Amino acid sequence: MSSNQMWGGRFAAGPSEIMQAINNSLPVDRRLWREDLAGSRAHAAMLRDCGIIDADDAAAILSGLDTIEAEFEANGVPDRADLEDIHMLVEARLAELIGPAAGRLHTARSRNDQVATDFKLWVRRACREAAAAIVALQQVLVARAEEHAATIMPGFTHLQVAQPVTLGHHLLAYVEMLQRDVSRLHDADERAEECPLGAAALAGTGFATDREATATALGFERPTANSLDSVSDRDFALDYLSAAAQCALHLSRLAEEVIMWASPPVGFVKLSDQWSTGSSIMPQKRNPDAAELVRGHSGRIIGLFTGLMITMKGLPLAYSKDMQDDKAPTFEAHDLLMLSLAALAGTVESATFVPATMRAAAASGFSTATDLADWLVREANVPFREAHHITGRAVKAAEEGGCDLADLSLAQLQAIDPRIDARVFDVLSVEASVASRTSHGGTAPDNVRAQVSRWREMLAD
Amino acid sequence: MSSNQMWGGRFAAGPSEIMQAINNSLPVDRRLWREDLAGSRAHAAMLRDCGIIDADDAAAILSGLDTIEAEFEANGVPDRADLEDIHMLVEARLAELIGPAAGRLHTARSRNDQVATDFKLWVRRACREAAAAIVALQQVLVARAEEHAATIMPGFTHLQVAQPVTLGHHLLAYVEMLQRDVSRLHDADERAEECPLGAAALAGTGFATDREATATALGFERPTANSLDSVSDRDFALDYLSAAAQCALHLSRLAEEVIMWASPPVGFVKLSDQWSTGSSIMPQKRNPDAAELVRGHSGRIIGLFTGLMITMKGLPLAYSKDMQDDKAPTFEAHDLLMLSLAALAGTVESATFVPATMRAAAASGFSTATDLADWLVREANVPFREAHHITGRAVKAAEEGGCDLADLSLAQLQAIDPRIDARVFDVLSVEASVASRTSHGGTAPDNVRAQVSRWREMLAD
Amino acid sequence: MSSNQMWGGRFAAGPSEIMQAINNSLPVDRRLWREDLAGSRAHAAMLRDCGIIDADDAAAILSGLDTIEAEFEANGVPDRADLEDIHMLVEARLAELIGPAAGRLHTARSRNDQVATDFKLWVRRACREAAAAIVALQQVLVARAEEHAATIMPGFTHLQVAQPVTLGHHLLAYVEMLQRDVSRLHDADERAEECPLGAAALAGTGFATDREATATALGFERPTANSLDSVSDRDFALDYLSAAAQCALHLSRLAEEVIMWASPPVGFVKLSDQWSTGSSIMPQKRNPDAAELVRGHSGRIIGLFTGLMITMKGLPLAYSKDMQDDKAPTFEAHDLLMLSLAALAGTVESATFVPATMRAAAASGFSTATDLADWLVREANVPFREAHHITGRAVKAAEEGGCDLADLSLAQLQAIDPRIDARVFDVLSVEASVASRTSHGGTAPDNVRAQVSRWREMLAD
Amino acid sequence: MSSNQMWGGRFAAGPSEIMQAINNSLPVDRRLWREDLAGSRAHAAMLRDCGIIDADDAAAILSGLDTIEAEFEANGVPDRADLEDIHMLVEARLAELIGPAAGRLHTARSRNDQVATDFKLWVRRACREAAAAIVALQQVLVARAEEHAATIMPGFTHLQVAQPVTLGHHLLAYVEMLQRDVSRLHDADERAEECPLGAAALAGTGFATDREATATALGFERPTANSLDSVSDRDFALDYLSAAAQCALHLSRLAEEVIMWASPPVGFVKLSDQWSTGSSIMPQKRNPDAAELVRGHSGRIIGLFTGLMITMKGLPLAYSKDMQDDKAPTFEAHDLLMLSLAALAGTVESATFVPATMRAAAASGFSTATDLADWLVREANVPFREAHHITGRAVKAAEEGGCDLADLSLAQLQAIDPRIDARVFDVLSVEASVASRTSHGGTAPDNVRAQVSRWREMLAD
Repeated sequence: MSSNQMWGGRFAAGPSEIMQAINNSLPVDRRLWREDLAGSRAHAAMLRDCGIIDADDAAAILSGLDTIEAEFEANGVPDRADLEDIHMLVEARLAELIGPAAGRLHTARSRNDQVATDFKLWVRRACREAAAAIVALQQVLVARAEEHAATIMPGFTHLQVAQPVTLGHHLLAYVEMLQRDVSRLHDADERAEECPLGAAALAGTGFATDREATATALGFERPTANSLDSVSDRDFALDYLSAAAQCALHLSRLAEEVIMWASPPVGFVKLSDQWSTGSSIMPQKRNPDAAELVRGHSGRIIGLFTGLMITMKGLPLAYSKDMQDDKAPTFEAHDLLMLSLAALAGTVESATFVPATMRAAAASGFSTATDLADWLVREANVPFREAHHITGRAVKAAEEGGCDLADLSLAQLQAIDPRIDARVFDVLSVEASVASRTSHGGTAPDNVRAQVSRWREMLAD
Repeated sequence: MSSNQMWGGRFAAGPSEIMQAINNSLPVDRRLWREDLAGSRAHAAMLRDCGIIDADDAAAILSGLDTIEAEFEANGVPDRADLEDIHMLVEARLAELIGPAAGRLHTARSRNDQVATDFKLWVRRACREAAAAIVALQQVLVARAEEHAATIMPGFTHLQVAQPVTLGHHLLAYVEMLQRDVSRLHDADERAEECPLGAAALAGTGFATDREATATALGFERPTANSLDSVSDRDFALDYLSAAAQCALHLSRLAEEVIMWASPPVGFVKLSDQWSTGSSIMPQKRNPDAAELVRGHSGRIIGLFTGLMITMKGLPLAYSKDMQDDKAPTFEAHDLLMLSLAALAGTVESATFVPATMRAAAASGFSTATDLADWLVREANVPFREAHHITGRAVKAAEEGGCDLADLSLAQLQAIDPRIDARVFDVLSVEASVASRTSHGGTAPDNVRAQVSRWREMLAD
Repeated sequence: MSSNQMWGGRFAAGPSEIMQAINNSLPVDRRLWREDLAGSRAHAAMLRDCGIIDADDAAAILSGLDTIEAEFEANGVPDRADLEDIHMLVEARLAELIGPAAGRLHTARSRNDQVATDFKLWVRRACREAAAAIVALQQVLVARAEEHAATIMPGFTHLQVAQPVTLGHHLLAYVEMLQRDVSRLHDADERAEECPLGAAALAGTGFATDREATATALGFERPTANSLDSVSDRDFALDYLSAAAQCALHLSRLAEEVIMWASPPVGFVKLSDQWSTGSSIMPQKRNPDAAELVRGHSGRIIGLFTGLMITMKGLPLAYSKDMQDDKAPTFEAHDLLMLSLAALAGTVESATFVPATMRAAAASGFSTATDLADWLVREANVPFREAHHITGRAVKAAEEGGCDLADLSLAQLQAIDPRIDARVFDVLSVEASVASRTSHGGTAPDNVRAQVSRWREMLAD
Repeated sequence: MSSNQMWGGRFAAGPSEIMQAINNSLPVDRRLWREDLAGSRAHAAMLRDCGIIDADDAAAILSGLDTIEAEFEANGVPDRADLEDIHMLVEARLAELIGPAAGRLHTARSRNDQVATDFKLWVRRACREAAAAIVALQQVLVARAEEHAATIMPGFTHLQVAQPVTLGHHLLAYVEMLQRDVSRLHDADERAEECPLGAAALAGTGFATDREATATALGFERPTANSLDSVSDRDFALDYLSAAAQCALHLSRLAEEVIMWASPPVGFVKLSDQWSTGSSIMPQKRNPDAAELVRGHSGRIIGLFTGLMITMKGLPLAYSKDMQDDKAPTFEAHDLLMLSLAALAGTVESATFVPATMRAAAASGFSTATDLADWLVREANVPFREAHHITGRAVKAAEEGGCDLADLSLAQLQAIDPRIDARVFDVLSVEASVASRTSHGGTAPDNVRAQVSRWREMLAD
């Protein structure tokens, strides 16, 4: 029995081949088979408990669903071009297994609420999977941050050397970003706490169903409150995609840095053999492919998110078939995100940082100029803006002398401003600079270690 | 004193004209002037309380900031092409007003944390403004829903007549969607609860500042925990834009329906003079311009959101100037969203629905076919799938007879299936259909009234 | 031999499992196997003709490539997780078939130019395939337009009835749009006329190759002029995607109209059984799924295009692995577009328009008001703006009288403006209105027939 | 007279304030005033020449339009919240100036075709402006390429040092990309060669107009062929935006390289004072703001393009008010693109490259490994794939010895493969490598100089 035979009671002719091709979502939604069985079980049990179907029929249905689960588990979901989606496939197989009683399962529900429920269950699980994968990456970053709590590197703004920071501090910045991603996924999961099952086609049903029961059985907080909204809503997928897109953006930033740091003129990091590739023509290459693919994937994930927003634009209520285009982008984005998280975790975990190169870069480029300005404010009570100008002249002098700030003589410095005295040299080293930045959130090694402890506790939960 | 003079201590030449043009953000960020003054006040007070600047300087600064506020309030923010942003403008004016003490305000901060703070304050306010405007639209929808709790209209899926629903139920579907938008804005506001002020350029500071104090003074929960992240992060703007984009999508759906319903062949609604426009060439026109612009604006808002995601892609830490492209899209999206919400509220509030046309449309097209199928399940114990087929044949008979389902004779129906009896006619009217759908979330008028009460309470909070 | 073994001469350890998973593009780029073989054949022949490899080696290579073609044709492209892409797969299989001589094929080329060539060949073919599918849809539209050259329907602006038009004219509007899409695909194909093969990794080669020869053999106009650009460029894919996105937008508009016209309250069209589907719960439904999916697919196609733009943003020269994310979106967009074109052609070809309903809708709503205004200008020399106002009053009178413009008496019209005389009734019918619009591009049936002839000729080429 | 008064003949009440605000496009479309006057002049002259208005009225109209031009030129376009767009503003001012004859100008046209014409004229001009600005950037790049035709730098793939290239060759890669952008803008301009003026509201007109005449007068090739398409089409804006987006992508890549090259650890370039900025807190900074803003703007431009695609999705024919959202994004994208092109031209023109640093980077990292492999193929007849493995072992030996390839002794090399002889040292220097790559499109200095000549000629046209 084809799906056309199921709904086609009044159709004289079957669908054209192309129609069948464009309409067939089974290659995509087969991935929902577990959720579809779970939804059907909850629905069958509820129908039985409410006296809408009798115990024998319910038992037959539940047993048939068990058989289907075993079959799919063993052999995968079969290809059936004539059964347009996973719901029809399950229903048709159930009819083969248990006969007409299978037809009672569709009482008081419709594919519209069924697919919304299946997909929502899947998306909620995806939220949790992604959050767990993020935490795994955070743990890698925290471990590397601890190791490099006092490793000095140049802090950049505009990719110019700005002030020295610690590598641990830099890595923990990503832990902060990723925590917001976890929070977003958590919000998305929470906002999806209403179960659409039982909203039926669009208007609710006249059967005396118990939607609280199915909602609870499926792990939802409560049933949805409006049947039209229940079958028209794909916010939950967009919420997931929005969180995924923002996470992918964070990963693209980390990836960009890995790629740049691994570039020979920078040389801050060496990637492991396991997480780099070679060239088919240049035998000396060690390419950061994983990081590049993560950066590239951010484009795809954002594009998939944008695509679903566009698809949802301007759709009248209630269900429109356009909404079938919700699953392919969501599934693909999730796969790309999960792979990106794992790949970046592996890349960072196995990377070898090169502290000497980092420190040398931090020490050049007058990176402690702000420390000189701050010293003038603190010790000589110069207004900051004036101190900034004095420091600018010192930088110019050093630049012209081809040396660094700390290499200027006291005489040279005093020629620029007589209020400078010998104590100033205490603040001009990168170590002194970094150690001094103990303000809340600052880069000092002790701060980094305290943050590492905080994160270890938080991530342990 | 130009901004170039402020930071250009070691620059031999000033910026080229084009450079100044591309770099000048004042035409955009002038909108942050209130937030900039608030941030500077909190910072000055904190510097004083921590003993970093003395009381006299602090008093002069705070008084100067008051003067600036009064000036801007009275005359607007002046145009100054040579002062590249609102921060420089305020600082330069302060220097004119109070002299060198103005230079002490920039101690232990940088424009990087300053702009992050200003913009975050603005975005948090935008979250609340948008949420309030959504609630206003929800209230209009709830009021119209109450009025039309029992007004029958066709429920559509695939824009085909599916089952009768009530207009009240339909309008409340949008209230549900909009509530998720409010929830999203609330989450965005909450996630922005950390204050970046005092993170300084990127590394924190060596001054013994009290970032808890400035955070609290500005209404934040606490200071940010990582200085690099503090100045690199624009998640808060993306969170707002994501919520705005999803809200705009919901509005585009309502707008699409208003436009379609107001189209003469449909004729479900007449728009008021105040919320429609005429034609420069066709005097009979009454155009739903507001709804069309709302639908059009959804494209722009999504585009602005996508644009900022793209801008943020792949940026290395910490601050990069690319991030200056955060404000124009966010401001524009907010303006478009606020206008859209108000315009749709006015359009719906003043619209005249046409119940007779709606009911006639609901009563045609065999919209109670599901009721017949459900009756067969309930009264004759037919499995749903079989009942669906029987009903399909009844629809075909009615279609061929050029009549509606309720117009078929009992004999005709029994010829299709002998289990049908006269009681079936009780379920074939649209009123009976609608009244029967009392399941949780269903369209029955009593359900709608109960939902209206629930919403009135919720929205009153 | 795995791909790792091919490039991994100096790697101590193989890739991790996740690395292999994220890096393996074979599941996607296997689709390029024909192009890869074509490129290799052209390259081998050129190497032989230039004396870079000897005739025996070349013969072995070419024969081996024939064998591979036969194998892939018969059994498909095998799965090989350890051979990361189609290029490695072909090279590895060639080595199995012909031994070390296979290693000579990679002389003076790299995977970087190879993949650019393969993909460009594929994209150029996609341009032509899509153009042909568009022409097929245009032919359907032209045929239906001819049939309905004089069928009157309401012309809408703002979805309000504006002026009567002919259905043929309306359908031909889409033929115009689609012609621009053909033109865009043609431009994209033309702009891709330079062959990257032989640019090698990024810098060209020291072998005395003949890139004109390979370019010509592969159907290109000439070789690319800059080797760095050759391997960094994906403009050709973006050009295709841009054309596909704009075409999808046009299709989304036609789909929207089909969906609306098939909606019972509008009722302008009935869809065939072959191009609509039924409902799993509402047996009376006839859903325009194909049109809805076409409209939905427009979102996905635009999203895929946007995604690749994002992926390409900010990539430094020359090849970066991010660019591997070029093929999945392009392939998917092409599949979606081809399906959309075929589905809409079938839907329109088999649809039954309902002229009576269309005419009735056109005749209501004062759609000939502009004709009255134009009559006043033409016959009574009233300035248009004033005529517009007079007509507005006539519309108001008719609206209040519950009748149409043509139903007003001459007395009523003259009470509004005495310059109106009995001849005016000649222009107030929809037939007269439509017939009068003979200006270039106007809707008059004769114009439509002339356009149909023009298109038949153009599309025949 | 407000616009409401112009079209509101039958409206009892005026628009609400919010309605007026959302509907008012004058702040945006005022920018079209020149095009609007041009279109009106062409239309008036045509109406006169066709005998539709008399010579006196035409003269009055044309003279009035001259007056308006002088006024706008002198004082700008006035703000008028009650006149909703530039078309109404001009018409209202004309009525003030010449009285009722002004009302004749709107004969046989509508705002729908008027705005399409105005905007198309503007977009065509934008295509040419952008193309000219691109050529200016190309000229800068060509001049710098000539200067650095033999300057050696590392060629990167995956940001790893791959093979030495010349800076001139690298810069010319961008000239190639930009030429495709010029070609795209040219195609966009060409595809917009049909004039919509005279299509009237949507259906054409009954007046005997001469649309060829207005098309020619306005510089179009011919009038549009279908009146419904004429007023529904915004392809021309999307074509411009697509070209702008792809150009912005190319600029983002060049900007990324400028930013990276100017970063101290890389140090390939020093930016001029005129094209960099300082820091408000770090006096040593020299920030590549212009390049960063160009990179950031690419996000905004793509977002604006995506936004308009979304706005156009699913719009039924003919004109819908959604389409009013076409101009703001197009204007903004053009401004951002023009600024980006000028800023990048200035940045590159005034930058100081650092050849010594570039050469040193090129000479490290075994960048001539491919040359060794190619030598083995050429001189020892080793299959490339085997040569690649031998070279891999040589790289490993050098890496372990902490030296470069050219520093290995002949004995060491022969221990790896005995076929290597002393001639190999001729190919291991970066100069030799670069000079050898004389294949078509290769990086050899002579190739670069030839390309510079070719470009000089092409750009001179």
